[in-house]
Amino acid sequence: MTGGTARGVHWVLAHPQQDSLNGRLFRSGVETLSADHDVVTSDLYAQDFDPVLRESDLGRPASRPGGRAAERLAEAYARGELAADVVAEQGKLAASHLLVLQFPLWWYGPPAILKGWLDRVLVGGFAYDDRLDPRYGVPRRYGDGGLVGRRALVVVTAGEDPGSIGPRGISGDLESLLFPLLHGTLWYVGIEALALHVVHDADGLDEDGVQREETRLRERLRGIGTEPGRPYRRLRDGEYREGRALRADLHPGRTDLGIHRLDA
Amino acid sequence: MTGGTARGVHWVLAHPQQDSLNGRLFRSGVETLSADHDVVTSDLYAQDFDPVLRESDLGRPASRPGGRAAERLAEAYARGELAADVVAEQGKLAASHLLVLQFPLWWYGPPAILKGWLDRVLVGGFAYDDRLDPRYGVPRRYGDGGLVGRRALVVVTAGEDPGSIGPRGISGDLESLLFPLLHGTLWYVGIEALALHVVHDADGLDEDGVQREETRLRERLRGIGTEPGRPYRRLRDGEYREGRALRADLHPGRTDLGIHRLDA
Repeated sequence: MTGGTARGVHWVLAHPQQDSLNGRLFRSGVETLSADHDVVTSDLYAQDFDPVLRESDLGRPASRPGGRAAERLAEAYARGELAADVVAEQGKLAASHLLVLQFPLWWYGPPAILKGWLDRVLVGGFAYDDRLDPRYGVPRRYGDGGLVGRRALVVVTAGEDPGSIGPRGISGDLESLLFPLLHGTLWYVGIEALALHVVHDADGLDEDGVQREETRLRERLRGIGTEPGRPYRRLRDGEYREGRALRADLHPGRTDLGIHRLDA
Repeated sequence: MTGGTARGVHWVLAHPQQDSLNGRLFRSGVETLSADHDVVTSDLYAQDFDPVLRESDLGRPASRPGGRAAERLAEAYARGELAADVVAEQGKLAASHLLVLQFPLWWYGPPAILKGWLDRVLVGGFAYDDRLDPRYGVPRRYGDGGLVGRRALVVVTAGEDPGSIGPRGISGDLESLLFPLLHGTLWYVGIEALALHVVHDADGLDEDGVQREETRLRERLRGIGTEPGRPYRRLRDGEYREGRALRADLHPGRTDLGIHRLDA
C-alpha cells in the first residue's frame, strides 16, 4: 500500500499518433500543470508499453501452477517479482495525487494499450487488498483501496456529438459506458474521479477547433485542485448488505448504475 | 462487407493460462460444437496476438499524415494493406455465423488482448460503413453493420457472486458493464448477442464445480442454434431522431441503458 501524501501529477496518454488532437492536448495539458506541479508522464505508445498480462507476470511458475491470476499477481508483488515496466508505472502512480488518463474512445472504451496498463499495474497488495479491514468488516475497495486519497481526471475524445453519445443517445452516455473505468477500476482502488473532460466531434475539428479545445483544457486544469470529486458510495459505509448489494431502502426498485452515486 | 451465408463457428479465447477454468471450458466447448459445426478458434494468448493498434496498422504513412485513425484504417482495408494477422482474423470472422467471445472479467471488461482484437480487427469497410445507406438515410451500424446476420455468445468468468455483480450489486450488473461490448461493438457491426453465459464465483470452484460448469456450457451449446437474440433497437428503424437520440415518446424521461432494448 502507498501513502496519501504524494503531491505529483501522473499523466497517462494512450494515442498512437504524436500529431493527433490527443497529442496536442497532452502537450499543452502537461505544460500547463508543470507550472505548479511535478508532472510525470506515461506516453504508452511512445514507451511501447506491453499491455498483455502474461504468464510471466504471475511470478515464479513453479510456485503456484494453476493458481488464479489475481492471487499470483499479488504474491509476485509481495515478493518484489513484478516486471520492471510495471514497477516503474506503480512508482509514478504512487508518487502522484492526481492521475490523468487521456485516450480516444475506441469501441466505447479505452484502447487496448491503456486497458492493459490497468490490467498489469493495478495488482493486489499495491492497488487493493482482498483481506477484510477489521475496522469495517469489508475489504479495502470501492472508495478505500491502496491508492486512496488520490483523484483522477479522465480526458476522452469521441467522434460523436452529445446527442448520439449522451443520456438518450443511441451509443449510451459516457458516464455509463465508462462506469467500469470510473467506478469499477478507479473507485475500486480508492481513486476519486472528477467530472469527465470530453471532446465531442473530435474527428471533425479544424485548427481553430483544436485551439479552442486546448484553451478549454488549460482553463480547466488551472482550477483542477478545487474541483469536487464524484460522489460514489463507499463500501465501508454500510450501504451495501454484507458488502454486496445496495440496501433495499435506498432507491427501492432501481437497478441503473446511478444508484451507486450518493447524489442519485 | 461480408456475406450472410457463413456457417462456421469462430471461438475467440483470451486467457493466459491453458490449465485454467477458462482453458477447460474452451476445450470442452469447442469439442461440443465441433460435432455439428466447422469450428475455427483464436486462442489469442497461444497465438501471441498483438492487441496494440499501431501507426503501422494505418497504411502507408506518407498517404495521410495526421489523418484520423479510423479513416486511415478503412483506407488501409480497402487497399488490402492491413497486417496479415488482422486479415487472418477477419477471414475467420467472415466465415462464421456464430462468434464466441470467452474471457475472464478483468477490471469489469475484457482483458487487453481481447480489447485490442476488437480495436484492430473490426475496421471500417469490413465491419461497418460510415456512409449513409440510401434506403434508410442512416449509416449501416447498430443492427445493420458489415457483419449483419451473425450472432455472438459471450462467455465470461467473474470472481464475484450474483449479489455483488448484479442489478443492485456494488459492482453493477454485467448487462450494463458489458454494454460497450454487447451493444457498442457487436450490435454496432450487426452482430446480435445472445444472453450472457456467466460463471460466477469462478475463482473458488473445486473440481466438481468446474465439471458442473463444463456440463452447463455443453448443454447450452447443444441448443444454441434456436436461442433468441438480444432485442436491441436498430438504428435504421427510425426510433432515434436523426439517427442519434431516442425519440421522446419512447420511455420518456428514462436515461438508463435499458432504453435501447425493444423489451425495455
